[in-house]
Amino acid sequence: MPRALTLAAIEAMDAADPLGPIRERFTLPEGIVYLDGNSLGPASPAVFGELEKTARDEWGEGLIRSWNTAGWFDLPITLGDRIGRLIGAEPGQTVVCDTTSINIYKAVHAAMGLRPERPVIVAEASSFPTDLYMAEGVLSTRTGTRMLLEGVDAPAIEDLIDERTAVVLVNHVNYKSGELRDLAVLTRRAHEAGALVVWDICHSAGALPVELDRANVDFAVGCTYKYLNGGPGSPAFIYVARRHQAEALQPLSGWWGHARPFAFEPHFHGDAGIRKFQCGTQPVLSLRALQAALDAWEGVEMTAVREKSLALTDLFIRLVEARCGGVGLTLESPRERARRGSQVSFAHPHAYEVMQALIERGVIGDFRAPSTMRFGFTPLYLSYRDVWYAVEVLEEVLRTEAWREERFAVRAAVT
Amino acid sequence: MPRALTLAAIEAMDAADPLGPIRERFTLPEGIVYLDGNSLGPASPAVFGELEKTARDEWGEGLIRSWNTAGWFDLPITLGDRIGRLIGAEPGQTVVCDTTSINIYKAVHAAMGLRPERPVIVAEASSFPTDLYMAEGVLSTRTGTRMLLEGVDAPAIEDLIDERTAVVLVNHVNYKSGELRDLAVLTRRAHEAGALVVWDICHSAGALPVELDRANVDFAVGCTYKYLNGGPGSPAFIYVARRHQAEALQPLSGWWGHARPFAFEPHFHGDAGIRKFQCGTQPVLSLRALQAALDAWEGVEMTAVREKSLALTDLFIRLVEARCGGVGLTLESPRERARRGSQVSFAHPHAYEVMQALIERGVIGDFRAPSTMRFGFTPLYLSYRDVWYAVEVLEEVLRTEAWREERFAVRAAVT
Repeated sequence: MPRALTLAAIEAMDAADPLGPIRERFTLPEGIVYLDGNSLGPASPAVFGELEKTARDEWGEGLIRSWNTAGWFDLPITLGDRIGRLIGAEPGQTVVCDTTSINIYKAVHAAMGLRPERPVIVAEASSFPTDLYMAEGVLSTRTGTRMLLEGVDAPAIEDLIDERTAVVLVNHVNYKSGELRDLAVLTRRAHEAGALVVWDICHSAGALPVELDRANVDFAVGCTYKYLNGGPGSPAFIYVARRHQAEALQPLSGWWGHARPFAFEPHFHGDAGIRKFQCGTQPVLSLRALQAALDAWEGVEMTAVREKSLALTDLFIRLVEARCGGVGLTLESPRERARRGSQVSFAHPHAYEVMQALIERGVIGDFRAPSTMRFGFTPLYLSYRDVWYAVEVLEEVLRTEAWREERFAVRAAVT
Repeated sequence: MPRALTLAAIEAMDAADPLGPIRERFTLPEGIVYLDGNSLGPASPAVFGELEKTARDEWGEGLIRSWNTAGWFDLPITLGDRIGRLIGAEPGQTVVCDTTSINIYKAVHAAMGLRPERPVIVAEASSFPTDLYMAEGVLSTRTGTRMLLEGVDAPAIEDLIDERTAVVLVNHVNYKSGELRDLAVLTRRAHEAGALVVWDICHSAGALPVELDRANVDFAVGCTYKYLNGGPGSPAFIYVARRHQAEALQPLSGWWGHARPFAFEPHFHGDAGIRKFQCGTQPVLSLRALQAALDAWEGVEMTAVREKSLALTDLFIRLVEARCGGVGLTLESPRERARRGSQVSFAHPHAYEVMQALIERGVIGDFRAPSTMRFGFTPLYLSYRDVWYAVEVLEEVLRTEAWREERFAVRAAVT
């Protein structure tokens, strides 16, 4: 990063950015700096075209025939393998289906089944909550089991992992602080204790290199509507290491997981491979939107994404601290690069109101109670100039006292 | 029905059909008679428009803000209530989410939890298989439980229901034969034995009146891509009678089922109402397609649908038997109106080949192994003229010997 953070220096960073041209693959509204791609990625002209083709030609004209002629039936597998390339998974281990929550259930249940003598799930109190809720759901079906939480039962998750641990359920990047865990190290630690790992990679898939195969991960689950830009509520994915596929069982044993789904047999016989982790019929329109969105990754290497992500977040932290000092902001994300995901969170006593003011001025991030402003940095379509502009607006909002009363009034109206 | 089945008489039936104008709400390819709306309903111009608006305006321009401003978050509830009107359910008992398979799991699990001292699920060997597979999944998590099947453990399901029965899991209309069960009578029989019912209404929702509230049904699950025309793989729905909602528990306890999903609390506290049966984020594009598809029901009463459905299936049976006698067809659907859903199945020794020949000639039904041809009759967009034409083509195919060798060759190539 250049030492003097002039606008000219920042524009030079954009000019030298190898990912700069990728931005053209996305549709971004005029006058918006979008720092919430870690919640919902943007659309693209390719997605609009694909949706129209799927709806008018495949569904409208092809009707039922398109299940075979248009390849709908295999979409969960073909899209799974394409995501596999982005998360360090060889083909045949990733399938796109259902929701993150449902896939957490499958993975945790399967992992506990592979360690039947061990009664404990170890997780994080700071986890994205649905992971904990789904683990509670699994535990509700297995007597004598329980969950231990980092932040409640011990300060560090490593101290909770022992010979009673069946599963370590952990977020690769924390949804709130953006803190990045060392996936390889914690996986090794769990394996040394004889436990299995389930990684939630919702906030790392498409944001940074995730080397599932190389780290010997057992299970991973992620969503496709954040950094993968699949569209609102696009189906999630589940990764199951090939070595576990034959033995692992998950109770959501629907016909799409059957070895012979169209034989209509009265008893369930699971597929021997990754298909066993499917359950029922998937929403084809949403799958097709995801398919087109994945085209944006063509020619993109995750190492380049990570490099730009760190440069964007470095720049944001540095500019904010240089220009917005003394107005109540506290950095909540790790300053250390190796522990930082692709977002930056700042706490502020009036975080909700400040974020509303930013959004009204076209800088879209989000708010997490009680006092966190999250800013997501997505290297495929953000420029260094965007970062500069966002900080300009943030400074303006923070240094203007007038917003406070205005925003309190808005909040009262909303709640 | 007119006694003399001339084409003129049939055209007179179309002219007098009060549902005739509804056909204009759908997009049907030229030259096709579509008798597979019981597998995948057709598209409509309204759906294309809604998809484009959702993708370009709400997602593309609105981005994350549309979760609130465009009402995405409440779609499962608002669409659930709209489907409720078609299945005899007062508002607040139906939610659109996940897949039929997943919702069967929730319903069966919840029902067993409400009858903890009872170890048996009673179901049908002829059930759509995924229902049995999901019930097996539930049983795999509950020791000492088992399933008894009509057609295996007794000829009639009524004989299997006793004081050990927790749940009767049953299809309202059989997917293969089109046989219709008496929902009210079987529900009463189950309740008399102290058991609960889970009705699979995939093949009756949108096909005929389903009086869930009036029959005192406990749980029901159905899909939206057949008679409701929601599009390929559109999300399913689950109905939970209000009297069970507070007490019933389902283990797929994701954040969308939490009483306060955005409080991000570390423990699950289920919503007191139907929202508890949601789990994770739903595919908005597919939900929006369903929303537009449901507009086609405006002003349509299910009694009129049923009347036309029976007239269509009566006509089909009568024409086929009048014109295709002596060529190996056997009626597999009930001749009795009260036991017939909205499809007609015929067995034929070369059912696969005959169906392929029909599809090539633009009459689309489907095949179910080993020897069933299914023809679905969907009153919103089929005419009596369509039925006439379909039988014309069927007769032509069946009376032409040449197709046999041709079709055997095709089958070999396909398998």
